[in-house]
Amino acid sequence: MTASRGDPIAALNRDTVCAFYDAYFDTLDAGRLEEWPEFFATECRYRIISRENYEAGQGLCIMQADSKGMLGDRVRAILKTQVYAPRYNRRFYSGLRIVNARAGELEVRQNVLIVQTLLNQPSQILGCGAGHDRVVLNESGELKFADRTLVLDTEMISNSVIYPA
Amino acid sequence: MTASRGDPIAALNRDTVCAFYDAYFDTLDAGRLEEWPEFFATECRYRIISRENYEAGQGLCIMQADSKGMLGDRVRAILKTQVYAPRYNRRFYSGLRIVNARAGELEVRQNVLIVQTLLNQPSQILGCGAGHDRVVLNESGELKFADRTLVLDTEMISNSVIYPA
Amino acid sequence: MTASRGDPIAALNRDTVCAFYDAYFDTLDAGRLEEWPEFFATECRYRIISRENYEAGQGLCIMQADSKGMLGDRVRAILKTQVYAPRYNRRFYSGLRIVNARAGELEVRQNVLIVQTLLNQPSQILGCGAGHDRVVLNESGELKFADRTLVLDTEMISNSVIYPA
Repeated sequence: MTASRGDPIAALNRDTVCAFYDAYFDTLDAGRLEEWPEFFATECRYRIISRENYEAGQGLCIMQADSKGMLGDRVRAILKTQVYAPRYNRRFYSGLRIVNARAGELEVRQNVLIVQTLLNQPSQILGCGAGHDRVVLNESGELKFADRTLVLDTEMISNSVIYPA
Repeated sequence: MTASRGDPIAALNRDTVCAFYDAYFDTLDAGRLEEWPEFFATECRYRIISRENYEAGQGLCIMQADSKGMLGDRVRAILKTQVYAPRYNRRFYSGLRIVNARAGELEVRQNVLIVQTLLNQPSQILGCGAGHDRVVLNESGELKFADRTLVLDTEMISNSVIYPA
Repeated sequence: MTASRGDPIAALNRDTVCAFYDAYFDTLDAGRLEEWPEFFATECRYRIISRENYEAGQGLCIMQADSKGMLGDRVRAILKTQVYAPRYNRRFYSGLRIVNARAGELEVRQNVLIVQTLLNQPSQILGCGAGHDRVVLNESGELKFADRTLVLDTEMISNSVIYPA
């Protein structure tokens, strides 16, 4: 991990970054989707992409948003379709690492396991993968995602609606 | 997180609380059920409740004990029935947060994944959910649960015997 | 946790040990198997053993290597057979504890969940268990495994090839 001296983001410790992810996953686990875009910088990117495509350098994504506005659109689309099959998604993460800190930006990785529970059914794995993220401080000193790219090990998502993670 | 000055529990850091949970889950994972009640305060409550009931404000629980004595009764009942189908339950947790600290009490949340392995069978998810707990310091300065409420995403527990988690 | 004064390994904190495990699991998750032996001391042991055998004191292992050279042999064997069915294994850990620190050695435990994804199939649990490890500092001051013993809750590994974890 390298950082220019005096870069405020380089002074952040792992606990502060973990607390940001804890709040992020808690918001999604609790189903407060309308708060989800607030974790992103004004200029941002959100992607869910299969590991096969990601490692092959192909840009085809399972889900992609290139601005905070598009994240809001996505939320509205999900909330409209949520009537179909009520479910809970819960996210577990492991091995959070700050792999780089430079120019006002942290590069963060972490393993993610998404467990889904449909009403009156046993919980099962929806997918797993790794976050390849860039996190920045906004003008108010709050952590925000400049880029969250969730690289999923599978292309098979047993889901008609793709939920954020 | 707010706390009155001079409240000893407010001085505890996240690592100390994590160590308490690590010891708690290790005791259960190792099957040392007879030690389980020792993690609770004399006045305590333990509940496993479905998320649907919890969010609807309904009190109906999958398992409930309202005193340390009842926890001991539960342990004895489980140990008697353990002959039927030997199994291992292992608990994984993620996103532990101290959401409040006041009046000698910590409010703690964490995601929990319970993985079950029956003899000569592959491991599978038994359930997942979130702990909504209140943790206190006893007179000896040890952390104890005043309330452990495990809110499970599913009502379907593929189990005739309910084990603590 | 007890440690002799002046023992450099006793001065290591939990974060440093977690960072070692994060790097270890990341190397395996990313499939960089050829780097795997580098996490071990020159004199080392690696074992995967069923919990049933481990608790019965039986030495029969699912996989065993008694030297760094044998770890390299294992890697070459896996890489040769990897053509058969492409898959990703991803490791999640929880509850890492330093249960002892003495004589230049840390005894470390942690729960491990291994999730496997075969090409174009949903992710599923491959196995879960606990690491019962001994970690040392080598002459360059780097952490290395003197012993990594992964105790799996199941004997049923739905896999023709056993991957390290």
